[in-house]
Amino acid sequence: MTNTDDAAKYADMVNTALEFTIPVAHTMGVRAIEARPGFAASEVPITGNGNHFGVMYAGVLFTVAEVLGGAIGIASFDNSAYYPLVKDLQINFRRPAKTTIRASASLDEETIAKVTKEAEEIGKADFMLEAELTDTEGVVVATTRGLYQLRKYGT
Amino acid sequence: MTNTDDAAKYADMVNTALEFTIPVAHTMGVRAIEARPGFAASEVPITGNGNHFGVMYAGVLFTVAEVLGGAIGIASFDNSAYYPLVKDLQINFRRPAKTTIRASASLDEETIAKVTKEAEEIGKADFMLEAELTDTEGVVVATTRGLYQLRKYGT
Repeated sequence: MTNTDDAAKYADMVNTALEFTIPVAHTMGVRAIEARPGFAASEVPITGNGNHFGVMYAGVLFTVAEVLGGAIGIASFDNSAYYPLVKDLQINFRRPAKTTIRASASLDEETIAKVTKEAEEIGKADFMLEAELTDTEGVVVATTRGLYQLRKYGT
Repeated sequence: MTNTDDAAKYADMVNTALEFTIPVAHTMGVRAIEARPGFAASEVPITGNGNHFGVMYAGVLFTVAEVLGGAIGIASFDNSAYYPLVKDLQINFRRPAKTTIRASASLDEETIAKVTKEAEEIGKADFMLEAELTDTEGVVVATTRGLYQLRKYGT
C-alpha cells in the first residue's frame, strides 16, 4: 500500500474505534481526517457544538484534540498488543472557535522508537503530544499538551 | 431566603443556562447540584458517557469540572454585568471513572472580593479554580485546575 492508503486505513480504524470506544466524541461529530505513524489530524463541526453565540464549547475543543492520542497511538504502535490512555491534558483557549475546527499533532520517529522499546520492555511507556487547533481561516483557537501512556493489554 | 433556597435557586439558574449556553454538556447529562457564593458542585451520569469497558470518557470528566467555573461565577458575581469564560484548564486523570461522577470547587471570600473589585475597576479579572472529581465511593478519579476570567458584558 502507499502511504496515502495507509493514512486512509488508519483514519477508518480510528473512526470505527471512536464510535465504539468514545460514543460521546462520535456523537459530537469528531472524526479522524488523517492518521499515519507520527501524525494525526481530526475535525469537529460547529453545528450542534456551539452555544447561542455560535462559539464552540471548551469540552468539544478538548475532545477533538484529546482523541489525537488514540489516533496517533493506533497508527504508530502495535495496537494488537498496546492501547493508549490519557494521563493528563492541559488546554489553552486562545480565540473563540466559530467554524469547523481541525486539530493535529505529530510524534517524531525517535520518540516512537523510544516508546515502542520501553513498552516492549516494561509493558508501558509515556508520551507527550502537543496539538494545535485551528479554524477554517487557519487561526489557532486553542493548543493542548497531553501526557498519554501506551499500555500493554492485560496489565 | 435561606442559604439552602439560594443554593437551589442558583443551581436552577445554572442548569437553565447550561441547556442554552452549553447544549453539549446538557446532552451529556451534566447538572449543577449545588451553587452558592464560593461553592459549586455538579454531577454527570455514567450512562451514555462510557466506552464499552464502562469507563467515562475524558472529555466528559473535563466537562463536568469545567462548568463549575460558570456555576461559581453565576452564584458569586453580579451576572447581570459579568460573565465567566475559561482561559485554560489542566486535568489530571487518576482512576477509571465508572459511576456517576461529582465535581466540586470552592472560591474563598477574599478571592471573590478581589475579583469583584478588579472586574469593577478594569472590566475583567482572572480567577483560578481547583476541582476534585469523585465517584460514588468517594474515590478521586480526576482533578482539575482551571484559569477563568470574569469579563464585563460588552467588552
